[in-house]
Amino acid sequence: MTLINELNDFCKSTLVEHLGIEFTEAGEDFLKARMPVDNRTKQPMGILHGGASLALAETVGSAASIAIVDNQKYNVVGMQMTANHVGQATHGWVNATATLVHKGTRTHVWDILILNEEGKKISVCRLTNMIIEKT
Amino acid sequence: MTLINELNDFCKSTLVEHLGIEFTEAGEDFLKARMPVDNRTKQPMGILHGGASLALAETVGSAASIAIVDNQKYNVVGMQMTANHVGQATHGWVNATATLVHKGTRTHVWDILILNEEGKKISVCRLTNMIIEKT
Amino acid sequence: MTLINELNDFCKSTLVEHLGIEFTEAGEDFLKARMPVDNRTKQPMGILHGGASLALAETVGSAASIAIVDNQKYNVVGMQMTANHVGQATHGWVNATATLVHKGTRTHVWDILILNEEGKKISVCRLTNMIIEKT
Amino acid sequence: MTLINELNDFCKSTLVEHLGIEFTEAGEDFLKARMPVDNRTKQPMGILHGGASLALAETVGSAASIAIVDNQKYNVVGMQMTANHVGQATHGWVNATATLVHKGTRTHVWDILILNEEGKKISVCRLTNMIIEKT
Repeated sequence: MTLINELNDFCKSTLVEHLGIEFTEAGEDFLKARMPVDNRTKQPMGILHGGASLALAETVGSAASIAIVDNQKYNVVGMQMTANHVGQATHGWVNATATLVHKGTRTHVWDILILNEEGKKISVCRLTNMIIEKT
Repeated sequence: MTLINELNDFCKSTLVEHLGIEFTEAGEDFLKARMPVDNRTKQPMGILHGGASLALAETVGSAASIAIVDNQKYNVVGMQMTANHVGQATHGWVNATATLVHKGTRTHVWDILILNEEGKKISVCRLTNMIIEKT
Repeated sequence: MTLINELNDFCKSTLVEHLGIEFTEAGEDFLKARMPVDNRTKQPMGILHGGASLALAETVGSAASIAIVDNQKYNVVGMQMTANHVGQATHGWVNATATLVHKGTRTHVWDILILNEEGKKISVCRLTNMIIEKT
Repeated sequence: MTLINELNDFCKSTLVEHLGIEFTEAGEDFLKARMPVDNRTKQPMGILHGGASLALAETVGSAASIAIVDNQKYNVVGMQMTANHVGQATHGWVNATATLVHKGTRTHVWDILILNEEGKKISVCRLTNMIIEKT
């Protein structure tokens, strides 16, 4: 089974599935996911809720670290998120790409860029994960 | 109808309702909401997903600004979120309180503290909203 | 020698002294310092440079962790800073207070509030320090 | 006079000059500056103070917005900074590059990457500036 299938399976019956988030593509130092813009993820004005963008960013940034550590030895814990909302999505899907900024022994830092279907920037996010040795 | 009822009504058929978030209490410079810790909001390890906390924080911090501006004249736009995840919730509800840090003419800054049912800190968040005159 | 004197001595011939920063008061879970608003810390428009506020915040937030860990055993490393600039200082001193938000085994989170002499908020900052065992 | 010379002149007798910061290169959507790693910018352990990195980031990110707005009509105000410190500099110079992430009518968002002389990442920063019409 591919990493993408594993991640989608792993997230069944969680927030990830509940928001319709699907992992779509993985590489050496990036991971992609998409999320529908509909009643599950919108705010009352009919546009994508900033909090849905944040949930997508935390999801893809956490999974990206899980995908590159030895999961027998280490736990990944999302520790710090920062995000700027710079555009609006109203329909279709938004696409998130997590790109590795820093890979330390104790922390990973990921940039997560969320674009709408037209390629316009919706949110630019940065997630810091702690990498903690299992005891 | 009270502000709390209005806010809960306003958010029907959105991310807010989809995650089970309920506004619970409002004051001069604070707003409270709660969110269930269950399959809608958990990550695969059975604990509250950091992204759910962020969605809750953005929800209560945005609504808090909406509650204190003249909505005929101004739009509230969530612009910048920053958050530290410092604890874990596994069951019941988490409670979020947004407290006003800065009320400017162009921006509001809110601290949002998320606690679990035992009163332990789960996430400490800060949201910056732009207050934009309607044209 | 008191902790305050030790910290001020420790920071001689560094950025801290160069900016005129002085530690002023310490308690169980807080630390205070002040910084002059003058040509050393202003930007061209004659007001306190936001970067000076950040330097003050990182200084007091780092020292605050140093003050509460066993320095024989642990190093303190500033890892993540986030700050909102919400007011302007033009003269005299600004006062910074670091207050402990989270004290974990691997990280400390501090809120640093910077006020001008009239007690107006200048910057609200949050610093995450890693606490790393010496090897 | 070139933009770089103008910026360096503009910052005389301010924090910028006091820390030895020099603007070095400007382009359509980027601006570069460098800062010496010495007693003016170090912390007590002999490495670059995280607060100096933040001061450099705020300096270059603010100047970058000033360089692209009509200064007769608009003021640039640094509003929100977020930064991850991911490496250490001990000598020579650090180089900062501000790259435009978002150019809106009311806000600019800049990524500021700080590298040491060997090209290693020291800090990754993001600055949000408000662009305010002069009245």
